[in-house]
Amino acid sequence: MAEQSKKWVLMVTAQTPTNIAVIKYWGKRDENLILAINDSISVTLDPAHLCTTTTVAVSPDFDQDRMWLNGKEISLAGGRYQNCLREIRARASDVEDEKKGIKITKNDWQNLHVHVASYNNFPTAAGLASSAAGFACLVFSLAKLMNVQEDNGRLSAIARQGSGSACRSLFGGFVKWVMGKEEDGSDSIAVPLVDEKHWDELVIIIAVVSSRQKETSSTSGMRDTVETSSLIEHRAKEVVPKRIIKMEEAIQNRDFPTFAQLTCSDSNQFHAVCMDTTPPIFYMNDTSHRQKVLTGCQLFRIIGCVEKWNCSEGTPQVAYTFDAGPNAVLISRNRKAATLMLQRLLFHFPPNSDTDLNSYVIGDKSILKDAGIQDIKDVDALPPPPEIKDKIPAQKYRGEISYFICTRPGRGPVLLTDESQALLNPETGLPK
Amino acid sequence: MAEQSKKWVLMVTAQTPTNIAVIKYWGKRDENLILAINDSISVTLDPAHLCTTTTVAVSPDFDQDRMWLNGKEISLAGGRYQNCLREIRARASDVEDEKKGIKITKNDWQNLHVHVASYNNFPTAAGLASSAAGFACLVFSLAKLMNVQEDNGRLSAIARQGSGSACRSLFGGFVKWVMGKEEDGSDSIAVPLVDEKHWDELVIIIAVVSSRQKETSSTSGMRDTVETSSLIEHRAKEVVPKRIIKMEEAIQNRDFPTFAQLTCSDSNQFHAVCMDTTPPIFYMNDTSHRQKVLTGCQLFRIIGCVEKWNCSEGTPQVAYTFDAGPNAVLISRNRKAATLMLQRLLFHFPPNSDTDLNSYVIGDKSILKDAGIQDIKDVDALPPPPEIKDKIPAQKYRGEISYFICTRPGRGPVLLTDESQALLNPETGLPK
Repeated sequence: MAEQSKKWVLMVTAQTPTNIAVIKYWGKRDENLILAINDSISVTLDPAHLCTTTTVAVSPDFDQDRMWLNGKEISLAGGRYQNCLREIRARASDVEDEKKGIKITKNDWQNLHVHVASYNNFPTAAGLASSAAGFACLVFSLAKLMNVQEDNGRLSAIARQGSGSACRSLFGGFVKWVMGKEEDGSDSIAVPLVDEKHWDELVIIIAVVSSRQKETSSTSGMRDTVETSSLIEHRAKEVVPKRIIKMEEAIQNRDFPTFAQLTCSDSNQFHAVCMDTTPPIFYMNDTSHRQKVLTGCQLFRIIGCVEKWNCSEGTPQVAYTFDAGPNAVLISRNRKAATLMLQRLLFHFPPNSDTDLNSYVIGDKSILKDAGIQDIKDVDALPPPPEIKDKIPAQKYRGEISYFICTRPGRGPVLLTDESQALLNPETGLPK
Repeated sequence: MAEQSKKWVLMVTAQTPTNIAVIKYWGKRDENLILAINDSISVTLDPAHLCTTTTVAVSPDFDQDRMWLNGKEISLAGGRYQNCLREIRARASDVEDEKKGIKITKNDWQNLHVHVASYNNFPTAAGLASSAAGFACLVFSLAKLMNVQEDNGRLSAIARQGSGSACRSLFGGFVKWVMGKEEDGSDSIAVPLVDEKHWDELVIIIAVVSSRQKETSSTSGMRDTVETSSLIEHRAKEVVPKRIIKMEEAIQNRDFPTFAQLTCSDSNQFHAVCMDTTPPIFYMNDTSHRQKVLTGCQLFRIIGCVEKWNCSEGTPQVAYTFDAGPNAVLISRNRKAATLMLQRLLFHFPPNSDTDLNSYVIGDKSILKDAGIQDIKDVDALPPPPEIKDKIPAQKYRGEISYFICTRPGRGPVLLTDESQALLNPETGLPK
């Protein structure tokens, strides 16, 4: 490495969104490279409400690669981190910062260690695809630090090796993960379909059922499905390809009824192949976790509530989709529908009386305002949705939802140039 | 009709078992004739614990066909009843009873009306395939009354037109419903695979989660699945035929591990295609029925409990299967396994303290005795199953199961010659 006049730390900070699949990824054809058995399509969520911020730093004084997640140091020994670091280093280029008197050549990167600090602006444990945003942000920020001369599509193939769904977080709007054909996975990349402005009427409400519990390990789950389900191959080879074509069309044409039908059906089919797995995978498959059981039931109740409303309206107002995580994602066709959806959600799932409404509905609070809800009293005053015509009084499930996040389709990764947003100290390269 | 010396009532009483499918029937190719889209296999349950008793009577004094179910008169106007009555009358033969001085010719039956009284020795509402036993018993008893000269296989094709699964209740042991090819359904019949003595080590425990609720309408449910699921056709055409062959082999060889694997997988796949339906079908798909939601959760908890135990034993001890009804059916490889299963069930699902154990575990109580359980105190004293190694204490769900029925594979329909068991008064032909 070139002689340096003085000690130095070079840093880059980036912000990357999370995403939610509307055509689901479930099943790998290569466990190590993380290659999917079918294409998938996702919507990127507004980083203003859900994102990962990552600062990566390099310095000749660092004696090992280190990472801190939400302030707590974690190990980088895992194969997925190592794969990402290796692939990025292999593509590093010369970096020169005359002001700081720093000169790093392509080969120097093999011997320089990095520090990584990452922070999610949402509960990591809530299963909101934090690993997707996390690995996307790690790869994106490292690529900028090491001056990697590749576009986000190429970078997505690296992020994919950290977490499959991470590749879709390299772009905003609606994104397709093309499964690809190559053995080395070089063509298994994310491609942007439309940007976040293309369909900006959409409003997304996330019901976080329980942030207490860990995300189910989708890695072992999808392995079991591929090995034991007699339906997954038919889904991957026959069903999904047709849905991908229809979904791309629906997104291009902003055709909400088709979009909703495909989104809900594919979410349900994902859970169907999980159920067809031996042993079956479902939210309540662990008798020792009562919370988990409740979680599953809450989600199913939300589906019932959406199905009933859509049916009564004659045309879909809201699409639902939910992953292996404990959350329901509800995509409304516009603000009006989102407002009515939120009223229904708050009617069925009011917060505990001691909950502050401000912490119960977070994100874009203007939806709450449109719904005419200022405080808990307004929630308790909500009338039953008109579509409920049951003899039995409508059920309420107070306190069984942790909180709601109101958001929308959002942009892809960005660099944060304002040093004050860095998570590492520019002098020491350690967490602030 | 021949001159009669005096007024008369001619009666027949029969008893028919219920059955539980181990390879599921879900989906019709003909709604009116009730023709399935795949073969199915069931085990007949011991009528000593679960059966329908039906008395049919004929008299020149009856001015219309009438039926009483569990003492309450019900309408015979429904197409399914009419189909069964029409098909049986079309096959009636001469009947002569010299002692009573009765002579009925083939053609008389078209003008004679019948009275039917039917009684289930288990809660009709509990979804224990009461319609299967009911229609099987109706057809069987009418056939005997009208001296129909056809074997149970032919009769099964008539019972099938009342309720699809009813055709499998015409035989004991393990029974296959062959879907058939003919448009008129003449070859869509039940065939006995092995009788109830072939595999008599099996012990069957039924967990009745809630006898309060009605069975989900499987007719509309399976119609929706056939019309909207993109997996059901693959299941019916590709998956089930292979499973039928394997299952017949497993039953012939009393190969419990294979039997259990197929039974559990097919139950889960049945629920998977229900989930793949638009709108999705699952236990908790109606937000207004809290009980229904709990029901689903209880069943999933039972699966988790069985899966965990089977896994810890290395080889399956118990197979689970559950239908659209609210009950779990657990088939144990032998008495020992059934005893250990019952202990686990009672540990996780103890009755409410005010419940009498005698009404909480019914049927073959010797299993309870083998489990060393005399009263509620013994239930509360049950230790957690050794396979539970969770940090969190094992969950208990007191009072969330209505009761358990211990039974076994059983015989097919029989005539009850003892007049005291008749449900109709031999003089009046009205319910006793």
